[in-house]
Amino acid sequence: MKERPAQVRWERRTQRPLFGLAAAFAVAYAVPIVWPEADRGVERLCTAVEWAVWGAFALDYLVRLLLAEERARFVRTHWLDLCAVVLPLIQPLRLLRLVSTLLLVGQRARVASQIRLTTYVGGAVVGLLMFGSLAVLSVERDSPNGNIKTLGDAVWWSFTTMTTVGYGDHAPTTGLGRMLAVGLMLSGIALLGLVTANIAAWFISRFEMDDVEERRQTAAIAALAEEVRALRAEVAALSDARPVVHSSVEERRR
Amino acid sequence: MKERPAQVRWERRTQRPLFGLAAAFAVAYAVPIVWPEADRGVERLCTAVEWAVWGAFALDYLVRLLLAEERARFVRTHWLDLCAVVLPLIQPLRLLRLVSTLLLVGQRARVASQIRLTTYVGGAVVGLLMFGSLAVLSVERDSPNGNIKTLGDAVWWSFTTMTTVGYGDHAPTTGLGRMLAVGLMLSGIALLGLVTANIAAWFISRFEMDDVEERRQTAAIAALAEEVRALRAEVAALSDARPVVHSSVEERRR
Amino acid sequence: MKERPAQVRWERRTQRPLFGLAAAFAVAYAVPIVWPEADRGVERLCTAVEWAVWGAFALDYLVRLLLAEERARFVRTHWLDLCAVVLPLIQPLRLLRLVSTLLLVGQRARVASQIRLTTYVGGAVVGLLMFGSLAVLSVERDSPNGNIKTLGDAVWWSFTTMTTVGYGDHAPTTGLGRMLAVGLMLSGIALLGLVTANIAAWFISRFEMDDVEERRQTAAIAALAEEVRALRAEVAALSDARPVVHSSVEERRR
Amino acid sequence: MKERPAQVRWERRTQRPLFGLAAAFAVAYAVPIVWPEADRGVERLCTAVEWAVWGAFALDYLVRLLLAEERARFVRTHWLDLCAVVLPLIQPLRLLRLVSTLLLVGQRARVASQIRLTTYVGGAVVGLLMFGSLAVLSVERDSPNGNIKTLGDAVWWSFTTMTTVGYGDHAPTTGLGRMLAVGLMLSGIALLGLVTANIAAWFISRFEMDDVEERRQTAAIAALAEEVRALRAEVAALSDARPVVHSSVEERRR
Repeated sequence: MKERPAQVRWERRTQRPLFGLAAAFAVAYAVPIVWPEADRGVERLCTAVEWAVWGAFALDYLVRLLLAEERARFVRTHWLDLCAVVLPLIQPLRLLRLVSTLLLVGQRARVASQIRLTTYVGGAVVGLLMFGSLAVLSVERDSPNGNIKTLGDAVWWSFTTMTTVGYGDHAPTTGLGRMLAVGLMLSGIALLGLVTANIAAWFISRFEMDDVEERRQTAAIAALAEEVRALRAEVAALSDARPVVHSSVEERRR
Repeated sequence: MKERPAQVRWERRTQRPLFGLAAAFAVAYAVPIVWPEADRGVERLCTAVEWAVWGAFALDYLVRLLLAEERARFVRTHWLDLCAVVLPLIQPLRLLRLVSTLLLVGQRARVASQIRLTTYVGGAVVGLLMFGSLAVLSVERDSPNGNIKTLGDAVWWSFTTMTTVGYGDHAPTTGLGRMLAVGLMLSGIALLGLVTANIAAWFISRFEMDDVEERRQTAAIAALAEEVRALRAEVAALSDARPVVHSSVEERRR
Repeated sequence: MKERPAQVRWERRTQRPLFGLAAAFAVAYAVPIVWPEADRGVERLCTAVEWAVWGAFALDYLVRLLLAEERARFVRTHWLDLCAVVLPLIQPLRLLRLVSTLLLVGQRARVASQIRLTTYVGGAVVGLLMFGSLAVLSVERDSPNGNIKTLGDAVWWSFTTMTTVGYGDHAPTTGLGRMLAVGLMLSGIALLGLVTANIAAWFISRFEMDDVEERRQTAAIAALAEEVRALRAEVAALSDARPVVHSSVEERRR
Repeated sequence: MKERPAQVRWERRTQRPLFGLAAAFAVAYAVPIVWPEADRGVERLCTAVEWAVWGAFALDYLVRLLLAEERARFVRTHWLDLCAVVLPLIQPLRLLRLVSTLLLVGQRARVASQIRLTTYVGGAVVGLLMFGSLAVLSVERDSPNGNIKTLGDAVWWSFTTMTTVGYGDHAPTTGLGRMLAVGLMLSGIALLGLVTANIAAWFISRFEMDDVEERRQTAAIAALAEEVRALRAEVAALSDARPVVHSSVEERRR
């Protein structure tokens, strides 16, 4: 993904405001779910903020597309972003807008190369837990035989799901809630894999340091270099004995 | 498994039609379970398609056996395929036919070397989830105290099992259903292992790139090469001073 | 664990009969649990077989101790075996005898170096599942509010525990049953770790083959060797031009 | 974390008494929970011991801070310890005191470099299981619809949580209990990762030993060294034929 200067400059300059908007989206998404008895005005404001944030990320996608030198390639490598831009226009469901915005934020965060992998994964896990809890709560609260009715239950359920503990004291009962749950489970497996892989890589990098064979090689190469240096000295002595013009490595480089 | 040209050519040519038949099998297996109030004609058609697909794969096994140069060795290394060909003839149970066909398809997909490991694993996971859900549904639906009665419940249960979350809101109660569940659990553990191993291998391959000892070695070898080149220059100067015929590496190679 | 010939010879010769006895123990342990309405004679026979097998392994331990050259060291490195030999004498409980015999069999199998790691782990997993199911069944069957009453339930529960799925439809309620369950859980975690590690090691060994830096080094060393060979040719030409006695590597070696 | 002698000497000398105090804390924390009908005097004694142990670790932190040469750096790298020292002064809750003392003990144990990683992890797991069980028991016992009422249930629940089995026969119902449970789950995931990583690192270190490419390199370097030695012999022969002063490597080093 070697991308051109104009696009890169845009991405750097818009990074901070976009992440600020992402935080605003989180608040606007949480308020009507956590505080269901709020004014209709508050609810409308939140919906407006959601649309605005999604719009800003959609605009960012279009600007990056215009600034890209190879547009066809940009569309191909960013097809997920394109879906996230188009989908809420076709089906203006709240959950779809959530997924679309999260996708756009996530893809944008991957571009920001300053962000390290650990920060990215940590942010993704916290974000998934938070939005997963809220989305399942909003879906399951209205289900007659649902058992996730408060924010506390929803967060607790998210944790038991993502760590694959799965007590079963709370579990989604609607189709939509279960689709969200599957997303959390798969993220949990990926998280577990990442944690393990990280520890394993750290362990193994320590083992590598002590690689016996490599040390022996380094010693062999050093001994060989010493041998060649001695040989050069002998040859130099040989040629010094007779009036021959010779040049050292340094002299030849000039 | 060094196999001979004739066999390889057959395997390449029949690959696509066989995978088309595998898709047909999936449909034929799903229809009577998802749509239990269907005509007896539909049911009979599905059974016929199932037998036909199994037959095609059994035939493929026999042709490959005939084309193999070392037949005894082929039978030994493909004994699982042989079981899958013979079993449905002894016990014409629907579940056995499913397992046999899945085995034959899976073994055949491993031969197709163009398919990459990730695709193979992904396909296996999706296939196991789909057929696992359908098989458990067909087994548990008729159980008096079963709790997996709809396709939605079966798919949901498959996901909670394969990710080892295991809420316990739905669980098989019959012996056959539990055997299928154990299969899903073991696949889930293998899947988790694969995901972790993949991430770990990727992490470690990045660490490898930064191997400090190796870089030091490369630098040492480069310095040594420079030293030897300088030595050659000196020896050349030495011999140039006197009328001696000498040849460079390139000249000697001619 | 460098052990002396006499001991090794004993271990090799007694290996097969001891594993045969281990199989007899499995049968003798299973029969009274699976078939509780059996004769008192059958039960007494089974108890006798259990004691006999344990006795054979205890005897094997003593013979190996006597044959060991450094006895103090043998006792120190085999203290677990010593416990397993002594414990059933102090507390002749059936469960304790099971654990002791399993320990002795397991330690003995580790000595048999012909058995590969995968076989050993596979055997341990199957053994733990089988004996775990039987032991929990025998403990929980008599518990008033227990829910593991049949062999099928016990095996099913073992699988859901060892794969860490844990539906919770069946779970031990007595202290002893829960201690057995904890053992199964920990084995399950170890099993998961082994599967993952095995796959990861295989993946990484494939990555290693393609190590870019190492290939570059090999090429650099080869180029250097070619350079040195050319240099030798030049020096040889230099000395051939004048009547100087020189010797090749081969000649010097004589 | 290169730390200065005075601090290191203090850390070595105080290590044993501090770990003795940690054991005393464990007893003082456990007694009022396991034995709730105890005298008020016993309870007061336990509270006093808890405060005393926390105080000793707080004092140890301050002494190490004073002995540190770069104090600002010490505070920055030990900010978690600082929180653990300050928090119980602000909010003298029992649970907070537990978490603070555990943190201080854990951080102190990391300094003790004699303790190996495996011992550290093992100790952490056992400690988390023990204190997790006790803390959840003390929190859930008073909850009206709680289901963790005895020490046995609490320990059993801890194991099912930490191994991510999660039967759901016992699960915390209060907010505080659930926060503790989340801590146990995350520790469980870390534990699983550590076990897997350990096994994987061991497997891979065995693979490394057999690295084919490296062996080939070592052989190539050895052959090259032999070649250079032969060359030196020839050059020496060349110069011996004429009265030229030359010096060996050893002579030049003097």
